[in-house]
Amino acid sequence: MEIRTSAMFMTAATLETLPGFRGLESDTLGAVQAISRLIEVPVDAVLCRQGSPPESLHYLLEGQVTLSQSAGNGDVAIIDVLQPVRGIDLANVVTGQAHQITARALMPSRLVELRAAPLRDLIGVRPSLATTMLQGLSIDLTTVTLQVIDLKLRTATQRLGCYLLRLATDAAGNRADFRLPVRKGLLAELIGCRQENLSRAFATLRDCDVETHGRRVILHDIDRLRHYALADQTAPAAASGLRRSAQAFSDAFSLR
Amino acid sequence: MEIRTSAMFMTAATLETLPGFRGLESDTLGAVQAISRLIEVPVDAVLCRQGSPPESLHYLLEGQVTLSQSAGNGDVAIIDVLQPVRGIDLANVVTGQAHQITARALMPSRLVELRAAPLRDLIGVRPSLATTMLQGLSIDLTTVTLQVIDLKLRTATQRLGCYLLRLATDAAGNRADFRLPVRKGLLAELIGCRQENLSRAFATLRDCDVETHGRRVILHDIDRLRHYALADQTAPAAASGLRRSAQAFSDAFSLR
Repeated sequence: MEIRTSAMFMTAATLETLPGFRGLESDTLGAVQAISRLIEVPVDAVLCRQGSPPESLHYLLEGQVTLSQSAGNGDVAIIDVLQPVRGIDLANVVTGQAHQITARALMPSRLVELRAAPLRDLIGVRPSLATTMLQGLSIDLTTVTLQVIDLKLRTATQRLGCYLLRLATDAAGNRADFRLPVRKGLLAELIGCRQENLSRAFATLRDCDVETHGRRVILHDIDRLRHYALADQTAPAAASGLRRSAQAFSDAFSLR
Repeated sequence: MEIRTSAMFMTAATLETLPGFRGLESDTLGAVQAISRLIEVPVDAVLCRQGSPPESLHYLLEGQVTLSQSAGNGDVAIIDVLQPVRGIDLANVVTGQAHQITARALMPSRLVELRAAPLRDLIGVRPSLATTMLQGLSIDLTTVTLQVIDLKLRTATQRLGCYLLRLATDAAGNRADFRLPVRKGLLAELIGCRQENLSRAFATLRDCDVETHGRRVILHDIDRLRHYALADQTAPAAASGLRRSAQAFSDAFSLR
């Protein structure tokens, strides 16, 4: 795999920050630690490739990673942009099936890398580790299901609004000012619309006091945008309800 | 849970037809058998309810089951319509979290019912059973990811075309004649469009020689419909490629 990496020693404390790892017995943590390392990768590093057998399981600690599906003609569909802390294609690593997605670093990123074959051997003899993986897969499933709800119940403009709201993490009161972490072409694929619809969506959001200059975004009225973006066409509270469930779920598993 | 059921004895042979169960050691199968039964439920029976703690894990053997999310105002969003053989909300049963979806029989159905608490105990001591559950979750994740790709890369009309193609299981050559298993209102929710767009989609598909009379559907030219419905806007081969992967995956796990 063509990753230029710098590898570092991994502490058990770092392992415990991964989804579902807290609470593992110390000898199991030690066994996982022995097959793990910390890596830093540059932008565009491929962490796993669609069609290839899994060699490693990666957990994103810092940075961003895109998950995509490429077509025979070279076109690429973006499935998701992962934020820390998340496992990458856990499903295929634990079952040993070929990756169904390609994961690529969208910026310089820091990850935990576990070797896949000895990890599967460990899962086979340590039920607590299997449970950890089940929890990780559940989180992945919840996230993808949220996306289905989003795509079914919201317009592209509302989905864009929701995306901007998720980025407004350091909002000052009702206002936020930030840069888009992805270019607009990628954003269109992520939202699930064409480039020209994305431009139209940004234009529509001006009515919710959303101002843009290139990749800089200013939300002048977060409450108003939230009201607009969460107003599902058919089921006003469904998606936010699921989001609450996902949060409760994360809390229950002591995720970050 | 308000299921009117008739329960029957469950054989190990029936258990072995469930996703990932083939290949379990006979004593593990026996332990699962001891906490399982076969049930038959009438139309509209609720198998699990959003917000409730999981009491049982159900596998659909015959019939159809809808997965939905209901909003505070009573509106319902359909996430999926399950066909046999599939586990129902495996993720929350194995982690013990409250169900995030409601599962309801769309027709009289036959299911395997495993008691949730003893199942979790078994998973904790039998790694092979944990692996079985990991495989089941992987299948669920693959299915939901396919839906995301579908929603992102295809128009509502193409998604309807794909749905009709999946129903054309007993096609005679290039022609198929069948009844829609779901009413059109539910179909719109499943496809992820409004009722009026569904009517427009059916009208558009007439150009692909799709004829409808109420719930009866006749596909006069399957090849043409396939060509139209699989022609993604941005990535012609992506979804069919993933479908091939999903098929290879099912084959690997001996699913039908």
